[in-house]
Amino acid sequence: LRTRARRADQNRLADIYGRAAEVFWRKGYHAASLNDLAKAVGLTKPGLYHYIRGKEQILFGIMSHAMNLLQVRVVDVVRSIADPEVRLKATLERHARLIVSEAPAVGVLAEEMAGLSPAHRRRIAQRKRDYLNLIRSTLQELQAAGRLRDVDITTTAFCLSAMIVWLPRWYHPEGRLSPEQVVAEIVKIGAGAVCRPGCAG
Amino acid sequence: LRTRARRADQNRLADIYGRAAEVFWRKGYHAASLNDLAKAVGLTKPGLYHYIRGKEQILFGIMSHAMNLLQVRVVDVVRSIADPEVRLKATLERHARLIVSEAPAVGVLAEEMAGLSPAHRRRIAQRKRDYLNLIRSTLQELQAAGRLRDVDITTTAFCLSAMIVWLPRWYHPEGRLSPEQVVAEIVKIGAGAVCRPGCAG
Repeated sequence: LRTRARRADQNRLADIYGRAAEVFWRKGYHAASLNDLAKAVGLTKPGLYHYIRGKEQILFGIMSHAMNLLQVRVVDVVRSIADPEVRLKATLERHARLIVSEAPAVGVLAEEMAGLSPAHRRRIAQRKRDYLNLIRSTLQELQAAGRLRDVDITTTAFCLSAMIVWLPRWYHPEGRLSPEQVVAEIVKIGAGAVCRPGCAG
Repeated sequence: LRTRARRADQNRLADIYGRAAEVFWRKGYHAASLNDLAKAVGLTKPGLYHYIRGKEQILFGIMSHAMNLLQVRVVDVVRSIADPEVRLKATLERHARLIVSEAPAVGVLAEEMAGLSPAHRRRIAQRKRDYLNLIRSTLQELQAAGRLRDVDITTTAFCLSAMIVWLPRWYHPEGRLSPEQVVAEIVKIGAGAVCRPGCAG
């Protein structure tokens, strides 16, 4: 029974993070009040305090959840791909798809780092660095094989990441391009920026 | 005498915008208080009110100033370049150089749109759309001449813009790459993403 109650609490918490991410995404972290969050979740403010200690804890929860998604849906899958070009394209594709499908939570991850406590910010920043290093090591492999354009690896890694992270700022799923089309475009543009002529379409 | 006093006020206002941009960039717009701004400018809060009506007016002033810089240093210069590939590279180069040299003001432009009043937000958003349309029309010219990769023009315009606007999030001028080196990398990566093999290095 205790386990079941704990699981119900955890499901409620996941729901709170999801709805809070939407509020933060729409209003910005600083402009959003605990009242806004309680209202979005359908709880009173004291009710909300049963699950969380404060706004910063929700922000850290959202960002940790987004980093977990990035780990499971991108990093863990692409790591086993041997060919660096195939791995790079799979990374861009899976990361872009994650951004398009989980825009509020993953968007908050990019936009609201300043809202975290210093200790939490260090933890999220470290996880982001690990992700960027995965892209950089893939670019290094391409370079060692003579398949990378004459570009700086760190600048390129940040540029590729910027293209994807910027998506929620302009892309509307109900617009001209379907989610799968915009993901495919990101892969084409990103791979084109990086791979020597002949390697990308 | 009256004109001289007005000019002194305008210079002071430009100085206030510059220092305020640094505060907004460091702390975020919502977290920054009028006290923080007054302190950075070396005025008391009532002294600051001699020049400005409030925080939102400063934000709009900073963003209008940044859009003016984009107009004068990028748009007005590249508009007269006939060849679309040369024009695209000049646009990337000049925009990236502006971001690297005026990071706080131009950075705030990308990050703090939510802080503007609805009327001011519409005006800045319109100016951003005009800039993006310049990039899109250059890409359309390349496409008409058969010199563009098989990519979607709108997605490409946003990706190029994202690479540049993201620069202040990671680039440190005192690091491994000089400002001119990182600008050159952005041009190579951006042009490579866009132009058919043979057109970019």
